Amino acid sequence: MTESPNEFVVPEVRRLDATQADFLATLDVLLTLESDTDRAIVERVDEIVRAVRATGDAAVLEYTRRFDGLDALAMVELELPRTEWEAAWRALSDAQRAALEVAAERIRRYHERQKAEGWMVEEADGTRLGLKVTPLDRVGLYVPGGRAAYPSSVLMNAIPAKVAGVSELIMVTPTPHGERNPLVLAAAYLAGVDRVFTIGGAQAVAALAYGTQTIPQVDKIVGPGNAYVAEAKRRVFGVVGIDMIAGPSEVLILNDGSGNPDWVAMDLFAQAEHDELAQAILVSTDRAFLERVQESIARLLPQQPRRAIIAQSLANRGALIYAPNRAAAIAIANRVAPEHLELAVEDPEAWEPEIRHAGAIFLGHWSVEAFGDYCAGPNHVLPTMRSARFSSPLGVWDFQKRTSLLAVSREGAAKLAPIAGLLADGEGLAAHAASARFRG
Amino acid sequence: MTESPNEFVVPEVRRLDATQADFLATLDVLLTLESDTDRAIVERVDEIVRAVRATGDAAVLEYTRRFDGLDALAMVELELPRTEWEAAWRALSDAQRAALEVAAERIRRYHERQKAEGWMVEEADGTRLGLKVTPLDRVGLYVPGGRAAYPSSVLMNAIPAKVAGVSELIMVTPTPHGERNPLVLAAAYLAGVDRVFTIGGAQAVAALAYGTQTIPQVDKIVGPGNAYVAEAKRRVFGVVGIDMIAGPSEVLILNDGSGNPDWVAMDLFAQAEHDELAQAILVSTDRAFLERVQESIARLLPQQPRRAIIAQSLANRGALIYAPNRAAAIAIANRVAPEHLELAVEDPEAWEPEIRHAGAIFLGHWSVEAFGDYCAGPNHVLPTMRSARFSSPLGVWDFQKRTSLLAVSREGAAKLAPIAGLLADGEGLAAHAASARFRG
Repeated sequence: MTESPNEFVVPEVRRLDATQADFLATLDVLLTLESDTDRAIVERVDEIVRAVRATGDAAVLEYTRRFDGLDALAMVELELPRTEWEAAWRALSDAQRAALEVAAERIRRYHERQKAEGWMVEEADGTRLGLKVTPLDRVGLYVPGGRAAYPSSVLMNAIPAKVAGVSELIMVTPTPHGERNPLVLAAAYLAGVDRVFTIGGAQAVAALAYGTQTIPQVDKIVGPGNAYVAEAKRRVFGVVGIDMIAGPSEVLILNDGSGNPDWVAMDLFAQAEHDELAQAILVSTDRAFLERVQESIARLLPQQPRRAIIAQSLANRGALIYAPNRAAAIAIANRVAPEHLELAVEDPEAWEPEIRHAGAIFLGHWSVEAFGDYCAGPNHVLPTMRSARFSSPLGVWDFQKRTSLLAVSREGAAKLAPIAGLLADGEGLAAHAASARFRG
Repeated sequence: MTESPNEFVVPEVRRLDATQADFLATLDVLLTLESDTDRAIVERVDEIVRAVRATGDAAVLEYTRRFDGLDALAMVELELPRTEWEAAWRALSDAQRAALEVAAERIRRYHERQKAEGWMVEEADGTRLGLKVTPLDRVGLYVPGGRAAYPSSVLMNAIPAKVAGVSELIMVTPTPHGERNPLVLAAAYLAGVDRVFTIGGAQAVAALAYGTQTIPQVDKIVGPGNAYVAEAKRRVFGVVGIDMIAGPSEVLILNDGSGNPDWVAMDLFAQAEHDELAQAILVSTDRAFLERVQESIARLLPQQPRRAIIAQSLANRGALIYAPNRAAAIAIANRVAPEHLELAVEDPEAWEPEIRHAGAIFLGHWSVEAFGDYCAGPNHVLPTMRSARFSSPLGVWDFQKRTSLLAVSREGAAKLAPIAGLLADGEGLAAHAASARFRG
C-alpha cells in the first residue's frame, strides 16, 4: 500500500466461461481454500487451555503478560470499568454517535422479529406437548484487537444476544501494550455489553469456557478471531457453545447486463479490501458487461487506498464469469453458496426464489452489501466457505435454546405405555419397557 | 449379566444432602466426566479422513474390508437396495409395525409444528427486509451397528429431516461380517430414508463429508456413533454441518414426596441400563421418599435383565439427593442442566416455569421418560453433559437454514448511504464507503 497510484499495475481479473466443458472443475478449484489445521497451533492452544483450566487467573495473567505485554498483578486490573466505555462513547463525534445509534436501532428492530416463542398443544386425551424457549444465561463475546476490530461487529454480535434476553454479556478484547480501540468500546457501551476484560487469544477463550476466579464461566462464545482463537473455540466446543468458525469473506454478484459497471466494480473492491484471501466473483449473462466492469476496475482501482490488498485478492481468488442465461447463473450461485449474494439485475424478485444457498441476498442495484455490513438491520455475521448449504446468519436463534415439554395425561399414558413397551422390548431395554408399563 | 438374581448384590446408591456446605462441590465432581480426546484416535481418524478424501471409494472399500470384514469389490455392492429394507419392514410382526407406525406418526405431527417460515416486511420508504427459510439439500444419517443400534433413533433423526423438506437422506450403517439389524432397516423404510450404504466408522463420515465416486457429498451429518465416529464428525465440522457430539445419557428426577417410589426407581433403572456411564439422579424434598426409593431399588433391581449395568451405572454416577425445598431442588436442576428432567411432583406446572436448562421436561407422574424415548412425539436426541445450557433437542431447525433478504429501495438507499459511509470510514474501509455512497 506504499506505492503511489501512478506506479500501480491494475490486475486483469481471471475470466471464466460457464459454457466451457471444464468450467465446474475450474470453479471448484477457485472456491477451495485449504485450511488444514496447523499442528503447532493445535498443540500451543492445547497447552494454553490446560494451563488456564488448571490455574485460572494466574495463567491468564501470565499469557497476557507474555503475548500482550500487559503487566497486571491481578485480574481485576484487566477489567475495564463501564465508565471507560462510556467515556469512549461520549468522545465520539455527534455524527458518529448518530450513525451508530441508527445502525443499532435498525439491527435491534430486525432481530426482534427473530425471537422464537414457546408453544403447548393439548390432545383429545388431555396430553399436552410443547416447546419452551429460554435465553442463554451468559455469553462471551470475543473482539479482536488490531486492524480487524470493527465496532460494527460488536453491534452485530451483541444486539442479537441482548434481544434474545441474555442476562450477562461479557466482552473480551486484547489491548496489546495497553492500546485500546475507542470505537469498539463505544459500540460495546451502545450495544449493552455488561462487562469488558482486556484479554485475548486462546487464554481468553479458555477463561470464558471454564471460568476462572475472576471471570465467570459462560454458556457460549461468539465473535471472530485469529487462528489461535478459532482453534481454541473448536477445542472448547461442547463445554460451551460456539458460533461458526468464519473463513475469509466472500461476495458473488449475479448480473443480467443491467446496472452501472462502476457500482459493481466498487462492490467487488469492497469485498476484496478485507484481506488477500477474500473472494469477489461476478457472474453476468452479458459478455459486454464483463468488459465494462474490467474497464471500471482499471479506472477506479488506482484511487483506492487499499488497492494493493484489493489487487492481490482479485488476482488470487476473484473472477469474472460469463453465464449463458439466468438458469446457468443461478446454478453457479447455488454451487458457490456464497456468504453475500448480490442480485444486480433488473428483476431480482424473479431470480431470488431459485436461490437455495446464500448467507444473505441483496436484491437489486440499490441493495449494496455495505448496507448489510453496517446498518440495514440483518446480521453481517454470515456463513462462509460454502457453509450456507447448512448454516444460517448469526441471529437471535443463536442465543435462545429450546426444551421439549411433555405432560402426558393418565388416559394418554394408557395409550402410549403398550407402544413404548413393545418398542423397548425390541431394543432389549427391559427397564424402559417396565417404566412405561407401570403407567399403562 | 451372567450372575443369577440370587447372587446379585444391590448397590447402596450415593446419598447427598443439599444443605451440607460441600454439596455443590460434590455435585460438580459427580457431574464431571473427563472426556479428553484420545490422541491415538485423533491421529487414526486423521489418516482415515485423508485417505478417503484422496482416493474415495477405494479407501472406503479397503477400510470396510479391514474393519468390518466385508469383502466388496465395488461400492455398489455396499449399497443396500430399497427392496431389502422393505422386506425387513414386511417381516416385522403386525404389532411391531403398528407400534412403529404410531410412533412415527406422532413424531411427525410434533415436528411439523417446528417448521420455520420465512417473512418479509416493508418499511415506509419501500425498503423490504426479510428472512428466507430453506431445507438442506442432502443429509447423512449415521446409524451404529451392534448393541447401540436403535430403530427409535432412526425415526428420531430421519423424520425431522424429512419434515424440513430434505430431498435426499442417506443412511450409513456398518454391518460387520454382513450382520444386519432388521429393525433398523425397517425403521429406515418407514421414516423415508432415500439410500442406505453398509459402511461405518470414520470412513463413512469422511465419505459423506467429501463425497466419493459413488457416495454423494452431503450438507450435514447427524446420528450417534462411537469415539471414532465422534472424532470424525468433529474433524469434518465446517466442511459439512454436524449435530451435537453426544455424551452418556442422563436423567434428573425432581420429587416432592408424592408418587410411587417403584415408578421412580424403575425410571432411574431405565436411564442406568443404557451403559455404565449413564447418569441417574433423584432429588427429593422428602427424606422418607428417598428411603422408599432405595427400598424399591433393592427389591426391583435383582429382577432386571440388565441389572449388572444398572448397578454399575448407579454406583458410578447415580445419587439420591435431599433438597430442603422446591427452590433448592430447582437450583440443582438448573446447575445440572440435565438431558431429561422428570418433574415427579404433585403440581409440575408450578415447578416448570423456574426450570431454565433441560433438554426435555416430563411433567407429572404419568410423563415417564420412556414415552419421550419412543413415541410421545418430541425428539429423543437431546443435549447432554450440561450442554442444555446452550443447545436444543434435535429438531426441524437442524435441517432448515436461513438466508437474510435485503431489498433496499432508492429512497431507502439515500438514507442508508451516508450512515454506512461514515461507519465504513471509521473502520478504514474506503471501498465499503464508496460502494455505499454510489447509492446515496
